[in-house]
Amino acid sequence: MKKPLILVTNDDGIDSKGIRFLVSIMSEFGEVVVVAPDSPQSGMGHAITVGDKLRLVKSDLFGDIESYKCSGTPADCVKIAKHHILKNRNIDLITSGINHGSNSSISVLYSGTMSAAIEGAIENTPSIGFSLCDFDPNAYLKHTKEHIKKIVNNALNNGIPDSIALNVNIPAVSSEDIKGIKICRQANAIWEETFDKRHDPYGREYYWMVGNFVNHDKGKDNDEWAIKNNYVSIVPCKFDLSSKRGLLFLNEKWKF
Amino acid sequence: MKKPLILVTNDDGIDSKGIRFLVSIMSEFGEVVVVAPDSPQSGMGHAITVGDKLRLVKSDLFGDIESYKCSGTPADCVKIAKHHILKNRNIDLITSGINHGSNSSISVLYSGTMSAAIEGAIENTPSIGFSLCDFDPNAYLKHTKEHIKKIVNNALNNGIPDSIALNVNIPAVSSEDIKGIKICRQANAIWEETFDKRHDPYGREYYWMVGNFVNHDKGKDNDEWAIKNNYVSIVPCKFDLSSKRGLLFLNEKWKF
Repeated sequence: MKKPLILVTNDDGIDSKGIRFLVSIMSEFGEVVVVAPDSPQSGMGHAITVGDKLRLVKSDLFGDIESYKCSGTPADCVKIAKHHILKNRNIDLITSGINHGSNSSISVLYSGTMSAAIEGAIENTPSIGFSLCDFDPNAYLKHTKEHIKKIVNNALNNGIPDSIALNVNIPAVSSEDIKGIKICRQANAIWEETFDKRHDPYGREYYWMVGNFVNHDKGKDNDEWAIKNNYVSIVPCKFDLSSKRGLLFLNEKWKF
Repeated sequence: MKKPLILVTNDDGIDSKGIRFLVSIMSEFGEVVVVAPDSPQSGMGHAITVGDKLRLVKSDLFGDIESYKCSGTPADCVKIAKHHILKNRNIDLITSGINHGSNSSISVLYSGTMSAAIEGAIENTPSIGFSLCDFDPNAYLKHTKEHIKKIVNNALNNGIPDSIALNVNIPAVSSEDIKGIKICRQANAIWEETFDKRHDPYGREYYWMVGNFVNHDKGKDNDEWAIKNNYVSIVPCKFDLSSKRGLLFLNEKWKF
Protein backbone atom coordinates (compact mmCIF):
# COMPACT_ATOMS: atom_id res chain seq x y z
CA MET A 1 0.00 0.00 0.00
CA LYS A 2 1.22 3.48 -0.87
CA LYS A 3 2.22 5.55 2.13
CA PRO A 4 -0.05 8.55 2.65
CA LEU A 5 1.34 12.03 2.01
CA ILE A 6 0.81 14.21 5.07
CA LEU A 7 1.33 17.96 5.20
CA VAL A 8 2.13 19.34 8.66
CA THR A 9 1.81 23.01 9.58
CA ASN A 10 1.04 25.11 12.64
CA ASP A 11 0.70 28.67 13.87
CA ASP A 12 3.30 28.83 16.64
CA GLY A 13 6.12 28.73 14.09
CA ILE A 14 8.26 26.00 12.61
CA ASP A 15 10.64 25.77 15.59
CA SER A 16 7.98 25.24 18.25
CA LYS A 17 7.88 22.11 20.36
CA GLY A 18 4.32 21.27 19.33
CA ILE A 19 5.01 20.94 15.60
CA ARG A 20 8.17 18.93 16.21
CA PHE A 21 6.20 16.45 18.29
CA LEU A 22 3.40 16.31 15.69
CA VAL A 23 5.91 15.67 12.88
CA SER A 24 7.40 12.78 14.85
CA ILE A 25 3.94 11.20 15.22
CA MET A 26 2.93 11.78 11.60
CA SER A 27 6.15 10.16 10.38
CA GLU A 28 4.81 6.87 11.72
CA PHE A 29 1.86 7.14 9.32
CA GLY A 30 3.39 8.23 6.06
CA GLU A 31 5.55 10.62 4.11
CA VAL A 32 5.60 13.99 5.83
CA VAL A 33 6.19 17.41 4.29
CA VAL A 34 6.36 20.39 6.64
CA VAL A 35 5.41 23.92 5.56
CA ALA A 36 5.09 26.19 8.57
CA PRO A 37 5.36 29.87 9.45
CA ASP A 38 8.83 31.27 10.10
CA SER A 39 7.48 33.24 13.09
CA PRO A 40 4.61 32.92 15.58
CA GLN A 41 1.18 33.51 14.03
CA SER A 42 -1.11 32.97 16.99
CA GLY A 43 -4.45 34.72 16.82
CA MET A 44 -4.11 35.24 13.08
CA GLY A 45 -7.55 33.79 12.37
CA HIS A 46 -8.09 33.09 8.71
CA ALA A 47 -5.69 35.83 7.62
CA ILE A 48 -3.94 35.53 4.26
CA THR A 49 -1.17 37.65 2.79
CA VAL A 50 -2.75 40.12 0.41
CA GLY A 51 -0.71 42.78 -1.34
CA ASP A 52 2.64 41.62 0.02
CA LYS A 53 5.26 39.10 -1.06
CA LEU A 54 5.85 35.70 0.53
CA ARG A 55 9.20 34.15 1.38
CA LEU A 56 9.63 30.38 1.31
CA VAL A 57 12.91 28.91 2.52
CA LYS A 58 13.98 25.27 2.91
CA SER A 59 14.53 24.23 6.50
CA ASP A 60 16.80 21.53 7.89
CA LEU A 61 15.06 21.38 11.27
CA PHE A 62 13.49 18.01 10.53
CA GLY A 63 16.48 16.09 9.13
CA ASP A 64 15.42 14.04 6.12
CA ILE A 65 11.86 15.32 6.16
CA GLU A 66 11.20 17.88 3.41
CA SER A 67 10.40 21.09 5.19
CA TYR A 68 9.98 24.78 4.49
CA LYS A 69 9.48 27.90 6.51
CA CYS A 70 7.19 30.52 5.06
CA SER A 71 6.84 34.21 5.92
CA GLY A 72 3.06 34.00 5.63
CA THR A 73 0.14 32.96 7.77
CA PRO A 74 -0.95 29.35 8.45
CA ALA A 75 -3.56 29.63 5.67
CA ASP A 76 -0.81 30.88 3.31
CA CYS A 77 1.31 27.85 4.25
CA VAL A 78 -1.46 25.48 3.20
CA LYS A 79 -2.01 27.37 -0.04
CA ILE A 80 1.66 27.44 -1.03
CA ALA A 81 2.09 23.78 -0.05
CA LYS A 82 -0.94 22.67 -2.04
CA HIS A 83 -0.59 24.85 -5.13
CA HIS A 84 3.17 25.24 -5.39
CA ILE A 85 5.36 22.82 -3.43
CA LEU A 86 3.11 19.75 -3.80
CA LYS A 87 1.06 20.88 -6.76
CA ASN A 88 1.55 17.67 -8.73
CA ARG A 89 0.81 15.36 -5.80
CA ASN A 90 -2.27 14.39 -3.83
CA ILE A 91 -2.13 15.34 -0.13
CA ASP A 92 -3.91 12.66 1.89
CA LEU A 93 -4.06 14.55 5.17
CA ILE A 94 -3.21 17.97 6.59
CA THR A 95 -2.45 18.20 10.29
CA SER A 96 -1.90 21.52 12.05
CA GLY A 97 -0.42 21.95 15.52
CA ILE A 98 0.12 20.81 18.12
CA ASN A 99 -0.95 24.27 19.19
CA HIS A 100 0.35 25.54 22.50
CA GLY A 101 -3.02 26.58 23.92
CA SER A 102 -6.69 25.70 23.59
CA ASN A 103 -8.66 26.40 20.42
CA SER A 104 -11.99 25.21 21.71
CA SER A 105 -15.39 26.87 21.25
CA ILE A 106 -15.22 30.43 19.82
CA SER A 107 -11.40 30.36 19.72
CA VAL A 108 -11.71 28.37 16.50
CA LEU A 109 -12.38 31.71 14.76
CA TYR A 110 -9.24 33.42 16.08
CA SER A 111 -7.01 30.39 15.72
CA GLY A 112 -4.23 30.22 13.16
CA THR A 113 -3.95 26.48 13.81
CA MET A 114 -7.55 25.93 12.81
CA SER A 115 -7.40 28.37 9.89
CA ALA A 116 -4.80 26.07 8.33
CA ALA A 117 -7.12 23.08 8.83
CA ILE A 118 -10.12 24.97 7.50
CA GLU A 119 -8.10 26.14 4.49
CA GLY A 120 -7.32 22.45 3.89
CA ALA A 121 -11.03 21.59 4.00
CA ILE A 122 -11.81 24.46 1.61
CA GLU A 123 -9.26 22.95 -0.77
CA ASN A 124 -10.88 19.54 -0.41
CA THR A 125 -8.18 17.83 1.66
CA PRO A 126 -8.93 15.99 4.93
CA SER A 127 -7.61 18.27 7.66
CA ILE A 128 -7.25 18.27 11.42
CA GLY A 129 -6.07 20.92 13.87
CA PHE A 130 -4.61 19.66 17.16
CA SER A 131 -4.36 21.88 20.22
CA LEU A 132 -3.18 21.23 23.75
CA CYS A 133 -5.03 23.19 26.44
CA ASP A 134 -1.79 24.57 27.88
CA PHE A 135 -0.19 27.81 26.68
CA ASP A 136 3.25 26.92 28.04
CA PRO A 137 5.64 26.60 25.05
CA ASN A 138 7.43 23.89 27.03
CA ALA A 139 4.25 22.01 27.91
CA TYR A 140 4.33 18.26 28.44
CA LEU A 141 3.16 16.68 25.17
CA LYS A 142 3.75 12.95 25.39
CA HIS A 143 0.26 12.09 26.61
CA THR A 144 -1.21 13.55 23.42
CA LYS A 145 0.40 10.91 21.24
CA GLU A 146 -1.96 7.98 21.75
CA HIS A 147 -5.02 10.16 21.17
CA ILE A 148 -3.58 11.84 18.10
CA LYS A 149 -2.76 8.39 16.71
CA LYS A 150 -6.31 7.14 17.28
CA ILE A 151 -7.70 10.20 15.54
CA VAL A 152 -5.30 10.03 12.59
CA ASN A 153 -6.02 6.32 12.17
CA ASN A 154 -9.72 7.07 11.95
CA ALA A 155 -9.12 9.95 9.55
CA LEU A 156 -7.01 7.80 7.21
CA ASN A 157 -9.18 4.69 7.40
CA ASN A 158 -12.72 5.97 7.93
CA GLY A 159 -12.38 9.42 6.36
CA ILE A 160 -13.43 12.97 7.10
CA PRO A 161 -16.47 14.30 5.20
CA ASP A 162 -15.67 16.79 2.45
CA SER A 163 -15.69 20.49 3.35
CA ILE A 164 -15.20 19.72 7.05
CA ALA A 165 -12.11 20.26 9.21
CA LEU A 166 -11.71 18.73 12.64
CA ASN A 167 -10.93 20.86 15.68
CA VAL A 168 -9.25 18.61 18.27
CA ASN A 169 -8.46 19.89 21.76
CA ILE A 170 -6.54 17.82 24.28
CA PRO A 171 -6.81 18.52 28.01
CA ALA A 172 -3.57 19.35 29.82
CA VAL A 173 -3.79 16.45 32.26
CA SER A 174 -1.79 13.30 32.65
CA SER A 175 -2.35 10.30 30.38
CA GLU A 176 -4.15 8.32 33.05
CA ASP A 177 -6.60 11.13 33.70
CA ILE A 178 -7.85 11.38 30.11
CA LYS A 179 -11.18 9.59 29.97
CA GLY A 180 -11.46 9.21 26.20
CA ILE A 181 -12.39 11.09 23.03
CA LYS A 182 -15.72 12.88 22.52
CA ILE A 183 -17.26 14.13 19.29
CA CYS A 184 -18.79 17.50 20.16
CA ARG A 185 -20.44 20.63 18.91
CA GLN A 186 -18.76 24.04 19.39
CA ALA A 187 -19.66 25.43 22.81
CA ASN A 188 -21.51 28.73 23.07
CA ALA A 189 -18.71 30.60 24.80
CA ILE A 190 -16.92 33.86 24.04
CA TRP A 191 -13.94 36.01 24.99
CA GLU A 192 -14.73 39.34 26.62
CA GLU A 193 -11.80 41.68 26.77
CA THR A 194 -10.53 44.27 29.14
CA PHE A 195 -7.93 46.84 28.10
CA ASP A 196 -5.01 47.56 30.35
CA LYS A 197 -3.86 51.11 29.58
CA ARG A 198 -0.16 51.96 30.04
CA HIS A 199 2.28 54.66 28.99
CA ASP A 200 5.46 54.05 27.02
CA PRO A 201 8.75 55.77 27.99
CA TYR A 202 7.80 58.63 25.62
CA GLY A 203 4.52 59.32 27.42
CA ARG A 204 2.28 57.85 24.74
CA GLU A 205 -0.61 55.56 25.67
CA TYR A 206 -0.84 51.95 24.66
CA TYR A 207 -3.02 49.02 25.63
CA TRP A 208 -2.78 45.35 26.40
CA MET A 209 -5.88 43.40 25.47
CA VAL A 210 -6.68 40.84 28.14
CA GLY A 211 -9.21 38.15 27.30
CA ASN A 212 -11.67 36.76 29.84
CA PHE A 213 -13.36 33.55 28.82
CA VAL A 214 -17.14 33.44 29.38
CA ASN A 215 -18.95 30.14 28.87
CA HIS A 216 -22.72 30.52 28.36
CA ASP A 217 -23.21 26.86 27.47
CA LYS A 218 -24.91 24.53 29.94
CA GLY A 219 -24.92 21.51 27.60
CA LYS A 220 -22.86 18.33 27.92
CA ASP A 221 -22.44 17.76 24.19
CA ASN A 222 -20.00 20.62 23.59
CA ASP A 223 -16.21 20.88 23.52
CA GLU A 224 -15.87 23.00 26.67
CA TRP A 225 -17.75 20.41 28.71
CA ALA A 226 -15.68 17.59 27.24
CA ILE A 227 -12.33 19.26 27.96
CA LYS A 228 -13.38 20.27 31.47
CA ASN A 229 -14.31 16.65 32.10
CA ASN A 230 -10.96 15.37 30.80
CA TYR A 231 -12.08 14.19 27.39
CA VAL A 232 -10.27 14.95 24.13
CA SER A 233 -12.82 16.94 22.09
CA ILE A 234 -13.37 16.76 18.33
CA VAL A 235 -15.58 19.38 16.70
CA PRO A 236 -16.29 18.94 12.98
CA CYS A 237 -16.19 22.48 11.52
CA LYS A 238 -17.63 23.80 8.29
CA PHE A 239 -16.81 26.98 6.40
CA ASP A 240 -20.25 27.74 5.01
CA LEU A 241 -21.32 30.42 7.47
CA SER A 242 -24.87 30.81 6.05
CA SER A 243 -27.44 30.72 8.82
CA LYS A 244 -30.78 29.05 8.01
CA ARG A 245 -32.32 30.74 11.03
CA GLY A 246 -31.04 34.06 9.67
CA LEU A 247 -32.41 33.38 6.19
CA LEU A 248 -35.87 32.56 7.60
CA PHE A 249 -35.90 35.65 9.81
CA LEU A 250 -34.84 38.09 7.09
CA ASN A 251 -37.20 36.61 4.51
CA GLU A 252 -40.10 36.94 6.96
CA LYS A 253 -39.42 40.25 8.72
CA TRP A 254 -37.49 42.48 6.35
CA LYS A 255 -39.19 44.65 3.75
CA PHE A 256 -37.53 46.41 0.81
CA MET B 1 -36.95 58.78 20.37
CA LYS B 2 -33.33 58.30 21.36
CA LYS B 3 -30.94 58.37 18.45
CA PRO B 4 -29.25 55.00 17.90
CA LEU B 5 -25.54 54.68 18.67
CA ILE B 6 -23.72 53.33 15.63
CA LEU B 7 -20.13 52.11 15.60
CA VAL B 8 -18.42 52.30 12.21
CA THR B 9 -15.26 50.42 11.35
CA ASN B 10 -13.61 48.85 8.30
CA ASP B 11 -10.51 47.00 7.14
CA ASP B 12 -9.14 49.32 4.46
CA GLY B 13 -8.06 51.82 7.10
CA ILE B 14 -9.60 54.93 8.61
CA ASP B 15 -8.66 57.22 5.72
CA SER B 16 -10.22 55.14 2.94
CA LYS B 17 -12.99 56.48 0.77
CA GLY B 18 -15.36 53.63 1.69
CA ILE B 19 -15.48 54.33 5.41
CA ARG B 20 -15.85 58.06 4.86
CA PHE B 21 -18.88 57.43 2.66
CA LEU B 22 -20.33 54.95 5.17
CA VAL B 23 -19.89 57.41 8.04
CA SER B 24 -21.75 60.08 6.07
CA ILE B 25 -24.68 57.69 5.54
CA MET B 26 -24.72 56.43 9.14
CA SER B 27 -24.79 60.02 10.44
CA GLU B 28 -28.28 60.31 8.98
CA PHE B 29 -29.44 57.49 11.28
CA GLY B 30 -27.91 58.30 14.62
CA GLU B 31 -24.87 59.14 16.70
CA VAL B 32 -21.78 57.72 15.05
CA VAL B 33 -18.50 56.69 16.68
CA VAL B 34 -15.67 55.59 14.39
CA VAL B 35 -12.97 53.13 15.51
CA ALA B 36 -10.98 51.92 12.53
CA PRO B 37 -7.53 50.53 11.74
CA ASP B 38 -4.72 53.04 11.24
CA SER B 39 -3.45 51.04 8.24
CA PRO B 40 -4.91 48.66 5.64
CA GLN B 41 -5.98 45.29 7.10
CA SER B 42 -7.37 43.54 4.03
CA GLY B 43 -7.28 39.76 4.15
CA MET B 44 -6.79 39.75 7.90
CA GLY B 45 -9.64 37.29 8.45
CA HIS B 46 -10.62 37.04 12.09
CA ALA B 47 -7.14 37.96 13.32
CA ILE B 48 -6.76 39.59 16.71
CA THR B 49 -3.68 41.10 18.33
CA VAL B 50 -2.25 38.53 20.70
CA GLY B 51 0.97 39.16 22.57
CA ASP B 52 1.47 42.69 21.30
CA LYS B 53 0.33 46.13 22.43
CA LEU B 54 -2.39 48.20 20.78
CA ARG B 55 -2.27 51.90 20.01
CA LEU B 56 -5.46 53.96 20.02
CA VAL B 57 -5.29 57.58 18.90
CA LYS B 58 -8.06 60.16 18.47
CA SER B 59 -8.63 61.20 14.89
CA ASP B 60 -10.00 64.46 13.51
CA LEU B 61 -10.77 63.04 10.09
CA PHE B 62 -14.52 63.12 10.69
CA GLY B 63 -14.95 66.61 12.15
CA ASP B 64 -17.38 66.52 15.08
CA ILE B 65 -17.80 62.76 14.96
CA GLU B 66 -15.91 60.98 17.74
CA SER B 67 -13.31 58.86 15.99
CA TYR B 68 -10.21 56.83 16.74
CA LYS B 69 -7.57 55.04 14.76
CA CYS B 70 -6.28 51.79 16.19
CA SER B 71 -3.11 49.87 15.39
CA GLY B 72 -4.98 46.55 15.56
CA THR B 73 -7.14 44.45 13.29
CA PRO B 74 -10.82 45.09 12.50
CA ALA B 75 -11.82 42.57 15.22
CA ASP B 76 -9.57 44.43 17.69
CA CYS B 77 -11.31 47.69 16.75
CA VAL B 78 -14.70 46.24 17.65
CA LYS B 79 -13.36 44.83 20.92
CA ILE B 80 -11.70 48.07 22.03
CA ALA B 81 -14.75 50.10 20.99
CA LYS B 82 -17.16 47.83 22.84
CA HIS B 83 -15.15 47.11 25.99
CA HIS B 84 -13.16 50.31 26.40
CA ILE B 85 -14.28 53.38 24.46
CA LEU B 86 -18.03 52.72 24.69
CA LYS B 87 -18.06 50.32 27.60
CA ASN B 88 -20.77 52.14 29.52
CA ARG B 89 -23.06 52.56 26.53
CA ASN B 90 -25.22 50.28 24.41
CA ILE B 91 -24.19 50.07 20.76
CA ASP B 92 -27.31 49.71 18.62
CA LEU B 93 -25.56 48.80 15.37
CA ILE B 94 -22.08 48.08 14.07
CA THR B 95 -21.42 48.74 10.39
CA SER B 96 -18.15 47.80 8.72
CA GLY B 97 -16.97 49.01 5.32
CA ILE B 98 -17.67 50.05 2.71
CA ASN B 99 -15.00 47.58 1.67
CA HIS B 100 -13.18 48.25 -1.57
CA GLY B 101 -13.70 44.80 -3.07
CA SER B 102 -16.12 41.89 -2.91
CA ASN B 103 -16.46 39.77 0.22
CA SER B 104 -18.96 37.33 -1.21
CA SER B 105 -18.99 33.52 -0.83
CA ILE B 106 -15.79 32.08 0.68
CA SER B 107 -14.16 35.52 0.92
CA VAL B 108 -16.20 36.06 4.07
CA LEU B 109 -13.56 33.95 5.87
CA TYR B 110 -10.59 36.03 4.68
CA SER B 111 -12.32 39.36 5.07
CA GLY B 112 -11.33 41.86 7.71
CA THR B 113 -14.53 43.79 6.99
CA MET B 114 -16.65 40.78 7.85
CA SER B 115 -14.51 39.78 10.83
CA ALA B 116 -15.48 43.09 12.43
CA ALA B 117 -19.16 42.36 11.79
CA ILE B 118 -18.84 38.78 13.06
CA GLU B 119 -17.01 40.03 16.15
CA GLY B 120 -19.97 42.34 16.71
CA ALA B 121 -22.37 39.40 16.45
CA ILE B 122 -20.24 37.37 18.88
CA GLU B 123 -20.55 40.26 21.29
CA ASN B 124 -24.31 40.35 20.82
CA THR B 125 -24.57 43.58 18.81
CA PRO B 126 -26.45 43.80 15.49
CA SER B 127 -23.73 44.02 12.84
CA ILE B 128 -23.44 44.43 9.09
CA GLY B 129 -20.45 44.37 6.74
CA PHE B 130 -20.83 46.30 3.49
CA SER B 131 -18.62 45.62 0.49
CA LEU B 132 -18.57 47.04 -3.01
CA CYS B 133 -17.55 44.58 -5.72
CA ASP B 134 -14.83 46.90 -7.03
CA PHE B 135 -11.27 46.86 -5.69
CA ASP B 136 -10.48 50.38 -6.97
CA PRO B 137 -9.81 52.59 -3.91
CA ASN B 138 -11.38 55.44 -5.88
CA ALA B 139 -14.44 53.45 -6.90
CA TYR B 140 -17.74 55.19 -7.50
CA LEU B 141 -19.78 54.76 -4.31
CA LYS B 142 -22.85 56.96 -4.59
CA HIS B 143 -25.13 54.25 -5.94
CA THR B 144 -24.58 52.21 -2.77
CA LYS B 145 -26.31 54.78 -0.59
CA GLU B 146 -29.96 53.98 -1.26
CA HIS B 147 -29.38 50.25 -0.73
CA ILE B 148 -27.35 50.73 2.43
CA LYS B 149 -30.12 52.97 3.78
CA LYS B 150 -32.80 50.35 3.04
CA ILE B 151 -30.73 47.70 4.81
CA VAL B 152 -29.92 49.86 7.83
CA ASN B 153 -33.57 50.86 8.14
CA ASN B 154 -34.53 47.19 8.25
CA ALA B 155 -31.78 46.40 10.75
CA LEU B 156 -32.84 49.19 13.11
CA ASN B 157 -36.60 48.63 12.77
CA ASN B 158 -36.99 44.89 12.15
CA GLY B 159 -33.82 43.64 13.80
CA ILE B 160 -31.07 41.13 13.09
CA PRO B 161 -31.30 37.77 14.91
CA ASP B 162 -28.80 37.34 17.73
CA SER B 163 -25.46 35.69 16.90
CA ILE B 164 -25.80 36.55 13.21
CA ALA B 165 -23.88 39.14 11.18
CA LEU B 166 -24.95 40.27 7.72
CA ASN B 167 -22.59 40.10 4.77
CA VAL B 168 -23.77 42.65 2.19
CA ASN B 169 -22.17 42.87 -1.24
CA ILE B 170 -23.09 45.56 -3.72
CA PRO B 171 -22.46 45.10 -7.45
CA ALA B 172 -20.21 47.66 -9.13
CA VAL B 173 -22.82 48.80 -11.62
CA SER B 174 -24.76 52.01 -12.02
CA SER B 175 -27.77 52.76 -9.82
CA GLU B 176 -30.24 52.12 -12.63
CA ASP B 177 -28.78 48.68 -13.29
CA ILE B 178 -29.24 47.36 -9.74
CA LYS B 179 -32.33 45.17 -9.76
CA GLY B 180 -32.92 44.99 -6.01
CA ILE B 181 -31.76 43.28 -2.83
CA LYS B 182 -31.64 39.48 -2.41
CA ILE B 183 -31.31 37.47 0.80
CA CYS B 184 -28.93 34.64 -0.05
CA ARG B 185 -26.89 31.74 1.21
CA GLN B 186 -23.09 31.72 0.84
CA ALA B 187 -22.11 30.37 -2.58
CA ASN B 188 -19.97 27.26 -2.84
CA ALA B 189 -17.00 28.98 -4.43
CA ILE B 190 -13.31 29.12 -3.52
CA TRP B 191 -10.05 30.85 -4.33
CA GLU B 192 -7.35 28.71 -5.91
CA GLU B 193 -3.95 30.29 -5.90
CA THR B 194 -0.98 30.33 -8.19
CA PHE B 195 2.43 31.50 -6.99
CA ASP B 196 4.46 33.86 -9.14
CA LYS B 197 8.11 33.30 -8.26
CA ARG B 198 10.54 36.25 -8.55
CA HIS B 199 14.00 37.21 -7.36
CA ASP B 200 14.79 40.27 -5.31
CA PRO B 201 17.83 42.50 -6.13
CA TYR B 202 19.88 40.31 -3.74
CA GLY B 203 19.11 37.11 -5.63
CA ARG B 204 16.70 35.70 -3.07
CA GLU B 205 13.41 34.15 -4.13
CA TYR B 206 10.05 35.53 -3.22
CA TYR B 207 6.48 34.87 -4.32
CA TRP B 208 3.33 36.75 -5.15
CA MET B 209 0.18 34.80 -4.36
CA VAL B 210 -2.38 35.29 -7.13
CA GLY B 211 -5.94 34.19 -6.43
CA ASN B 212 -8.19 32.65 -9.08
CA PHE B 213 -11.84 32.55 -8.20
CA VAL B 214 -13.60 29.23 -8.89
CA ASN B 215 -17.38 29.07 -8.52
CA HIS B 216 -18.71 25.50 -8.14
CA ASP B 217 -22.24 26.67 -7.34
CA LYS B 218 -25.00 26.27 -9.93
CA GLY B 219 -27.78 27.53 -7.63
CA LYS B 220 -29.70 30.78 -7.93
CA ASP B 221 -30.17 31.33 -4.21
CA ASN B 222 -26.55 32.24 -3.45
CA ASP B 223 -24.64 35.50 -3.25
CA GLU B 224 -22.50 34.96 -6.35
CA TRP B 225 -25.57 34.46 -8.50
CA ALA B 226 -27.22 37.53 -6.99
CA ILE B 227 -24.23 39.80 -7.58
CA LYS B 228 -23.67 38.51 -11.10
CA ASN B 229 -27.30 39.28 -11.83
CA ASN B 230 -27.01 42.83 -10.47
CA TYR B 231 -28.69 42.26 -7.11
CA VAL B 232 -27.32 43.47 -3.78
CA SER B 233 -26.72 40.27 -1.79
CA ILE B 234 -27.26 39.78 1.95
CA VAL B 235 -25.95 36.59 3.55
CA PRO B 236 -26.79 36.07 7.25
CA CYS B 237 -23.61 34.56 8.76
CA LYS B 238 -23.18 32.61 11.97
CA PHE B 239 -20.03 31.89 13.96
CA ASP B 240 -20.92 28.43 15.25
CA LEU B 241 -18.92 26.33 12.80
CA SER B 242 -20.19 22.95 14.12
CA SER B 243 -21.32 20.75 11.26
CA LYS B 244 -24.32 18.49 11.91
CA ARG B 245 -23.36 16.41 8.89
CA GLY B 246 -19.87 16.05 10.35
CA LEU B 247 -21.22 15.04 13.77
CA LEU B 248 -23.43 12.35 12.22
CA PHE B 249 -20.60 11.00 10.09
CA LEU B 250 -18.04 10.80 12.90
CA ASN B 251 -20.50 9.30 15.35
CA GLU B 252 -21.41 6.62 12.82
CA LYS B 253 -18.08 5.79 11.17
CA TRP B 254 -15.31 6.50 13.65
CA LYS B 255 -14.21 3.95 16.24
CA PHE B 256 -12.02 4.58 19.27
